Amino acid sequence: MDERAALDLVGGLVSGAGDDAAVVDGTALTIDMLHETTDFPPGTTRYTAGWRAVGASLSDVAATGADATAAVAAYAAPEFEEGELSEFVAGANEVCDAVGAAYVGGDLDGHDEFTVATAAVGDADGQVGRDGARPGDAVVVTGSLGRSAAAIEYFERGDTQRANALFQFMPRVAAGRALAGHATAMMDSSDGLARSLHQLSEGSGCGFDVDSDRIPVADDLEGLVADPLDRAVTFGEDFELVATVPPERVEAARGALSVDLSVVGEVTESGILLDGDPLPDEGWTH
Amino acid sequence: MDERAALDLVGGLVSGAGDDAAVVDGTALTIDMLHETTDFPPGTTRYTAGWRAVGASLSDVAATGADATAAVAAYAAPEFEEGELSEFVAGANEVCDAVGAAYVGGDLDGHDEFTVATAAVGDADGQVGRDGARPGDAVVVTGSLGRSAAAIEYFERGDTQRANALFQFMPRVAAGRALAGHATAMMDSSDGLARSLHQLSEGSGCGFDVDSDRIPVADDLEGLVADPLDRAVTFGEDFELVATVPPERVEAARGALSVDLSVVGEVTESGILLDGDPLPDEGWTH
Repeated sequence: MDERAALDLVGGLVSGAGDDAAVVDGTALTIDMLHETTDFPPGTTRYTAGWRAVGASLSDVAATGADATAAVAAYAAPEFEEGELSEFVAGANEVCDAVGAAYVGGDLDGHDEFTVATAAVGDADGQVGRDGARPGDAVVVTGSLGRSAAAIEYFERGDTQRANALFQFMPRVAAGRALAGHATAMMDSSDGLARSLHQLSEGSGCGFDVDSDRIPVADDLEGLVADPLDRAVTFGEDFELVATVPPERVEAARGALSVDLSVVGEVTESGILLDGDPLPDEGWTH
Repeated sequence: MDERAALDLVGGLVSGAGDDAAVVDGTALTIDMLHETTDFPPGTTRYTAGWRAVGASLSDVAATGADATAAVAAYAAPEFEEGELSEFVAGANEVCDAVGAAYVGGDLDGHDEFTVATAAVGDADGQVGRDGARPGDAVVVTGSLGRSAAAIEYFERGDTQRANALFQFMPRVAAGRALAGHATAMMDSSDGLARSLHQLSEGSGCGFDVDSDRIPVADDLEGLVADPLDRAVTFGEDFELVATVPPERVEAARGALSVDLSVVGEVTESGILLDGDPLPDEGWTH
C-alpha cells in the first residue's frame, strides 16, 4: 500500500486525522517525522534541520488557524556530537522565537539514520479545516512558492550556503491567525500547490480554476531551473498557506497580513484546472 | 558524547527540558521516539507497538501531574501494510481510550527501520517537577515494577502472547492527577527505579534511602529470572510513577488512587542507598 492509500486507511480509523493538525478541546496538536535520506540533502546544516523540522510542525498548527505556542523535537542520530546538537537546538529555538512560540526540548534516541520527529501545539478557537471551500471563493496563497525547490538545486550544485538560507522558511503562524477569521478552508503547501488543491478538493467536494500568471513563483527559481512555474506548483515543501476566502473578504484578509497574499484563482464546482487544463495530482509524497 | 551527556547539553540550552513533559501556558507537551532495534523485540505486534509508543507519551504527561487529553503518532516503516497499520492504530486508540484521551492521528513516513514517534498533550494546572523532594518525604511507587523486564524474557523464550500482554502497560494518568495534589516531585519509571532516584536526586539536591522489601516487584518476574529484585529496580520501561510525598499525606494520596501505592523509602539529605548500600545509577538508556 502506498503512502496515500495508507493515509486514507488511517483517516478512516482515526477521527480528526486528515487535517494538518488535530484540534482537541481548543488545543491544536501535530507530529511530523523527517529523515536524512528524504528530507535533509547532503549539505543541510543541523541548524537548518532544527529550523526546518520544528518549522514544519509550527506550519501544521498555523494551517488550522491556531496560535502556535510550543514545540518539541526528538533527535535521533548514530552519535551525538556537541556541535551538531547545539546547532540543531539553536535552529529549533530560533524558528520558535520567530513565531512567538517556545521550544521546550524533547527526546534523544540512538538511530542509524539521522531522523527528527517534531510536535507542536497551539491555542485554537475553532479550526479552519479542509472542508469549507465553496464555489466562488477566491484561492489565495501566502508568500511565494519554490524556495525549497530552489534550495534543492543549490544543494545539488554545492552552494550549500544559499541552499541552507532558502531551506529556512518562516512558518505562517501570524498569517494563519489572520486568515482564520476569513478563510473557509486552509492547509499548508508542504506537498506542493497542485497536491494541496487536490486535497482541498477532496475535503470540500469542489473544484479549482487557477491561473498560472497569478501564481507567486519565487524569484529564486528564475534562471535556476528550466520551468520555474512547474517546479513552484509541484515541488512543495514550501510551507506557505493555501486557503479559500469569500471574494468580498480578500481585501480584509490581505490587510490583516504582513506577508504577501496572492489570489491565484477561484473555487469551482468540480475539476482542478490550471489555465483551463487539468492539473494532475503530482507533488511531494513524504 | 553519550546520551546522558547529550541530554545534559540540551538541558543547558533549552528551558523546560529535563522533565518528562514540558508545561507551557497550562499545556503539557512531550515527544518520544521508539524504534525496532531497541524498543520492539521480535514478536512485538503492531497493536502492542501502538499501545506502548503512545502510552509512553501519555505516561510522560501523567508524570507532570497533567490530565492527558490527546496524542498523535508518526509511523515510519519500509512499507505500509494494511493489517499492521490498522493494528497499530487500534493499539494507539485503545491506550488513549483507557486513560480518557483522544488519539487524533499523525504522520506516515517511509523509513528503513520501523520507527514510531509519539506526542501527547495534557491540561496542567501547575506542574509537578523533579525539584521539590525534601528530606523526610516518603518515596512512593505506583503499581509494580518489572512487567516489561518479564515481557523481554518471554519474547526471548518465544512466548510472544504473554510478552505482548505484559508489554501493554497502563499509563498512570489518573494516578498522576491524584498524586499531583500531594507530591513534591514526580517522574515516571521509564528508565528504571534506580535511575529515576538518581534523576530526582539531581533535580532536588537530595538523597534516598530505599528498602528492598518494600519495592513492589511484579509477580510476573518470580521464577522467571535469577534476581527479580535487581531486574525490577534497574530494567525500567515500566512507566509507573515514582514520587515523593510528605509522610502525613501518604494516606490521603493512597486513598485518591485506584492503583496500589507502595512506600519504598524516604528522602534523605544525600546519598542513594538500597538497604544501606549505594544504589548505582544503572538502568535503561534509550
